[in-house]
Amino acid sequence: MTPEDFRKQGYALIDWIADYLEGVERFPVASTTAPGWVRDQLPAHPPTETEPFDAVLADLDRIVVPGLTHWQHPSFFAYFPANTSYPSILGDLATAGLGVNGMSWATSPACTEVETLMLDWMAELLGLPDRFRSDGPGGGVIQGSASEATLCAILAARQRATQGAVNVAGVPGNLVAYTTSQAHSSIEKGVRVAGVGTDNLHVVAHDAAFAMRPDALEAAIAEDRAAGLRPFFVCATAGTTSTTAFDPVPELAAICRREGIWLHVDAAHAGIAALCPELRWVNAGLDQVDSYCTNPHKWMGVNFDCDLFWVADRAALLGALSILPEYLRTAAGEAGAVIDYRDWQIPLGRRFRSLKLWFTLRCDGVAPIQSMIRDHVGWTQELAAWVAADDRFEIVAPHPLDLVCFAHRGGDEATDAMIAAANASGSAFFTRSVADGRSFVRVCVGGRMTERRHVEAAWALLQSTANTLP
Amino acid sequence: MTPEDFRKQGYALIDWIADYLEGVERFPVASTTAPGWVRDQLPAHPPTETEPFDAVLADLDRIVVPGLTHWQHPSFFAYFPANTSYPSILGDLATAGLGVNGMSWATSPACTEVETLMLDWMAELLGLPDRFRSDGPGGGVIQGSASEATLCAILAARQRATQGAVNVAGVPGNLVAYTTSQAHSSIEKGVRVAGVGTDNLHVVAHDAAFAMRPDALEAAIAEDRAAGLRPFFVCATAGTTSTTAFDPVPELAAICRREGIWLHVDAAHAGIAALCPELRWVNAGLDQVDSYCTNPHKWMGVNFDCDLFWVADRAALLGALSILPEYLRTAAGEAGAVIDYRDWQIPLGRRFRSLKLWFTLRCDGVAPIQSMIRDHVGWTQELAAWVAADDRFEIVAPHPLDLVCFAHRGGDEATDAMIAAANASGSAFFTRSVADGRSFVRVCVGGRMTERRHVEAAWALLQSTANTLP
Repeated sequence: MTPEDFRKQGYALIDWIADYLEGVERFPVASTTAPGWVRDQLPAHPPTETEPFDAVLADLDRIVVPGLTHWQHPSFFAYFPANTSYPSILGDLATAGLGVNGMSWATSPACTEVETLMLDWMAELLGLPDRFRSDGPGGGVIQGSASEATLCAILAARQRATQGAVNVAGVPGNLVAYTTSQAHSSIEKGVRVAGVGTDNLHVVAHDAAFAMRPDALEAAIAEDRAAGLRPFFVCATAGTTSTTAFDPVPELAAICRREGIWLHVDAAHAGIAALCPELRWVNAGLDQVDSYCTNPHKWMGVNFDCDLFWVADRAALLGALSILPEYLRTAAGEAGAVIDYRDWQIPLGRRFRSLKLWFTLRCDGVAPIQSMIRDHVGWTQELAAWVAADDRFEIVAPHPLDLVCFAHRGGDEATDAMIAAANASGSAFFTRSVADGRSFVRVCVGGRMTERRHVEAAWALLQSTANTLP
Repeated sequence: MTPEDFRKQGYALIDWIADYLEGVERFPVASTTAPGWVRDQLPAHPPTETEPFDAVLADLDRIVVPGLTHWQHPSFFAYFPANTSYPSILGDLATAGLGVNGMSWATSPACTEVETLMLDWMAELLGLPDRFRSDGPGGGVIQGSASEATLCAILAARQRATQGAVNVAGVPGNLVAYTTSQAHSSIEKGVRVAGVGTDNLHVVAHDAAFAMRPDALEAAIAEDRAAGLRPFFVCATAGTTSTTAFDPVPELAAICRREGIWLHVDAAHAGIAALCPELRWVNAGLDQVDSYCTNPHKWMGVNFDCDLFWVADRAALLGALSILPEYLRTAAGEAGAVIDYRDWQIPLGRRFRSLKLWFTLRCDGVAPIQSMIRDHVGWTQELAAWVAADDRFEIVAPHPLDLVCFAHRGGDEATDAMIAAANASGSAFFTRSVADGRSFVRVCVGGRMTERRHVEAAWALLQSTANTLP
């Protein structure tokens, strides 16, 4: 592809994307293709002749689009959202176009410095405590996902608890971590990856609102210490995946500080709510925690992958992850005057991911995001009121933000049938979850293009499927 | 930003990228900015008013570009390359524009199925053994980097060696891994992250060509078994970072099979050479290994991040990484009819990264990549001949592909001064490395836009700096 072709085809692809996003509502939300259908449309063997870009665009329409579950569809109420925005898409394009690797400061100073600044800007916009700012012992970094942030938090905690011995000797058998059954699966995955083992991830009891019980955490720690175990890590969640439950971070932080245990707060989805001052209660207790993460790639319209991960003291993180072979030594790095982000993450290489955050904050600003968040929260509360007024349904958890969870009073079978029928309609898409043994539907009102009418339609759909249950 | 703005600004950014890449040669290769310069050009606090996209583009020119080390510069001879190509940039743009998350097959079947097909296409193009194809017990996945592939290989090996007990009980204290001092830093990082500890990463002696000595591996395994340790993982390298040394994979594979040890081959850079049939010797022994990775985001012009990771038997990998909370259950997944790639990687979420590989293979095809690789290897051999003919220099390692390493006979101080002066000139960029205690310059001829004249100029630069050494 020549530069001239690139210009021409680039324009065509820009147009194709705008057309796709502006017209996404016409597609079924979830793909209806059978397993293998997409692959069967494509040649089994790689091409031996080049093809014009038009053929690729045509296949996007004919094969790829039918094989997508449209996360940008205004009636996508499943999981948590993965919003994009136009400036953010351009940011990712710039990243691809520049093609630099920011593994060290020296391998592209702008990649590191813009990222550090964006983390400071975001800390300010979210109202986070100063301890996370880059001009002190703490600081932030973009991770690919909250899963990776959690893993890094576990590694930093492991490092601090063993004073670095873990790097050399491996994981001691007596380390213990804590979370609730409501925490994201990435906590268990991280504990496994880090070699701690799920037997050593102790599940702390939650209350009726699915929030961790501080008394249960205290009791578990005491019992484990008495048994000769070494509590080293607690993962609290600010907005769980199943129900947006909020663990009581201030109380948990007091316990963790007293006990010398690393406290990580996973606010992957809900943390972005703090862009609205009136929702800044989601930050409660962060001035006492060791690490924190939230994802602009969920509710903020900055495309995946963009998780923001902050630590109050970067020494443990760097101790866990720094390795310096000769070919990575640089004068600036040796002088200690710069940040080498390779030591803040699992991979070595890294893309210039802060551009999409920078572009979004400059071109769109936070006002439309605040307005979107307020709409989502407002519509969710309206929806919750409609659900509460319908005696076929029961709301199963508090709904402080943009997620409402409810079950059919006819039991799990009725709930599951309702969700399956609604999703099969193609006109909206929901996630089923289970808590304390009961099945329910999650309706997350988080799409950038979602309007009130889509929420109304989703509710009408769920009502009508409930009406036709066998 | 409205859809109309996006179209207009998207065209402008496409043009900006083409201008940047076509004109990149005019910049100093490595950034000359001082620490903090980029950040100091930007507002300390986030904007309160939105700005036109033109202002962002202007700042790319004024602030970002001077802060870049230009990895796409034709005189970038440092590290290994991180090539891009025009179709690949468009592929990344399409990924950002679609904004889907392929964590499960059901969350966008096309994301999974195109990726699986691309891994099969690449296995065919590289001439890899059938054991890595997706229609058997093995298969492949796109990882963000070779570091993550290595970590996943370690986790799969840990899983197999303990028959899954590691997930529950944590890492037993007696697991031992093996590699050479020449292996990439990500091996040590992965062993640390996995909780095995660097004391349990045994460094196997290498020969004069920096390749692992099979007899030394055998002896180390025997000694460790006698001491009650449990050898579980060997990482061989096909093309080390320092010198492109090739560990003797066929011999190592025979040992590992006999001993029941997982053998991973890290061919991050060199593996792509197998696109040329005459260079397919880089694949030697792969029909007997457990896992393999190579990076189209290095030598193939598919932008970062795109590491291809294959396993011969996916059961251990999935055993290590599968976790299934209720909200991730899907009918297709339960039926076992589909691949859920979240279970093949550390993170949960994932971008539609196969698009950039698909676009590149369709629009450019492998012919220009083969031609580029042949040029690079040819010019590297020419350069090596020039170096060998200059009695001030000594070549320190074999140079079978696109990297030649040499030292100044005046000693480390002379070598280091030569590299520093050459890099400071801004007209080329090299990496210094050290092996067996001796400092040398690495000249990797791997850039997509590099021509023979750039190699000649680089050689002239190194000669002239050597002439002016104090």
